Amino acid sequence: MPLLVIGSVALDSVHTPHDAREDVLGGSAVFFSYAASFFTSVRLSGVVGEDWPHEHTRFLQSRRIDTSGLQVVPGGKTFRWRGKYLANMNDRETLEVHLNVLGEVDPVLPDDFRRCPYVFLANGAPQTQIKALDQVVGPRLVVADTMDLWIREAHEDLMQLFRRVDGLVLNDSEAKLLTGDENLVRAGQRIREMGPKFVVIKKGEHGAMFFSQYETYVLPAFPTEQVVDPTGAGDSFAGGMMGYLAERGDFEPQSLKKAMAYGILVASFTVEDFSLERLKNITREDLEFRLQQYQRMLSFET
Amino acid sequence: MPLLVIGSVALDSVHTPHDAREDVLGGSAVFFSYAASFFTSVRLSGVVGEDWPHEHTRFLQSRRIDTSGLQVVPGGKTFRWRGKYLANMNDRETLEVHLNVLGEVDPVLPDDFRRCPYVFLANGAPQTQIKALDQVVGPRLVVADTMDLWIREAHEDLMQLFRRVDGLVLNDSEAKLLTGDENLVRAGQRIREMGPKFVVIKKGEHGAMFFSQYETYVLPAFPTEQVVDPTGAGDSFAGGMMGYLAERGDFEPQSLKKAMAYGILVASFTVEDFSLERLKNITREDLEFRLQQYQRMLSFET
Repeated sequence: MPLLVIGSVALDSVHTPHDAREDVLGGSAVFFSYAASFFTSVRLSGVVGEDWPHEHTRFLQSRRIDTSGLQVVPGGKTFRWRGKYLANMNDRETLEVHLNVLGEVDPVLPDDFRRCPYVFLANGAPQTQIKALDQVVGPRLVVADTMDLWIREAHEDLMQLFRRVDGLVLNDSEAKLLTGDENLVRAGQRIREMGPKFVVIKKGEHGAMFFSQYETYVLPAFPTEQVVDPTGAGDSFAGGMMGYLAERGDFEPQSLKKAMAYGILVASFTVEDFSLERLKNITREDLEFRLQQYQRMLSFET
Repeated sequence: MPLLVIGSVALDSVHTPHDAREDVLGGSAVFFSYAASFFTSVRLSGVVGEDWPHEHTRFLQSRRIDTSGLQVVPGGKTFRWRGKYLANMNDRETLEVHLNVLGEVDPVLPDDFRRCPYVFLANGAPQTQIKALDQVVGPRLVVADTMDLWIREAHEDLMQLFRRVDGLVLNDSEAKLLTGDENLVRAGQRIREMGPKFVVIKKGEHGAMFFSQYETYVLPAFPTEQVVDPTGAGDSFAGGMMGYLAERGDFEPQSLKKAMAYGILVASFTVEDFSLERLKNITREDLEFRLQQYQRMLSFET
């Protein structure tokens, strides 16, 4: 089933201890879309400026990604982010943020985007996420991401959003900030009580945790020694997870767990190179092969 | 098969954000022995002072723990540690360390301890660990623990120890310190190249990683919301792991992985109360029940 994502489309400049890239393809909706496109057709909604390189659009179209929801703002400039990773490749500093068109224009969904049954609201101002969701008619599954900025500065809006989504995806540090609880098991359960039917806490190199009314579990990250650039790992995770759910067409507990696993595995490829470079060079078969390795890793005789 | 542990026996004073305990039973060899005693008979070697409460010895003897290797040093005082956990219950400050007899007397193994096939050298000065190992005749499996102090101040001795052990257990921060590599997958592999046939990196609330020539994998911690006191978690992990291996009597890859799982699960109980309080109140059946939960958590349909 088709999957709609509303989020940022960006040009990223990334500095790691060993290398750097300038103005490469990035943004939450881009990483999400590409990751999800291994599993299902994706409809991407976002805004860019006149400086947006059209080859990026063509590149996304070469996958199962419908870019008709990508608005080009006349005279506007594309969202730009510049960040620097510390030696542990987990912590990062944001060096520059130029919101540009991202701060000025709310996405307007094309007609056929509005009937998408699976919806992902990538990180953004909660009021913008709600405005986007208001345009969708009868969705089957709505999942949102958020970040520390909105937890700190738009708490009421966030609580309003939580009551409208089925699932929420956020980082470990954000979960602690939102609840004031350092124990992630308690934090996850408390966030679920704020509205979402399920909550996923992303722990970066340590994997991800899942919380529903019936289940609490954690799955580890796939161990990888080649971490080149973690940018987009979290959005790839969400893309892999939602992509598989949309392909599958249900959200039974076992489907959700397998979706978590696919999210973890897509993200494990994303970090192996800058931007989408690594994902460009893998196929669904590579994901299936890594899934088998992952399942072997997690199984032992009874 | 019997399992020998040589390590510290201590009286711990522990401060957490919510509670505190004074002079409670602790020490690496104590946590290890109790954890291992769910699986096999244990021979405990260590030194204490005249102030050692004999009820602790009787308590250990009430399990399958042979305390005839516990030397009471006349006129000596028992090793004491005082520590304080920060709000995240993961980081801690050491407030006081009184090595007392621990710094003065090397363990002398009783005759029947020397023929133990399974040996664990708990954290200690590498030269002391080597002196203990020199007393053991024809062991089948020797595993050691270490810490940052020895990595910094006794590097050559540590390298000598590494060439004599089959396995090494250490923390994530220690693995990074030892290799200068922030990527734990590379760090684990590099430590294995220093001598041990297998290496286990403990990641606290994030589980543990395993490295051999043939395998690299990670298992997550069992998610628990009730973290009262993490003291002894790492030693309980090692005790559960080695205890199961000694019970099993082999160290095939599948046995090692299941041993890792038992280690993780015993540790998940240890942290639920101070000292050995939680472990006192569980049985092997509780471990088996949690193992089933853990396996269900880690499995999903193919």
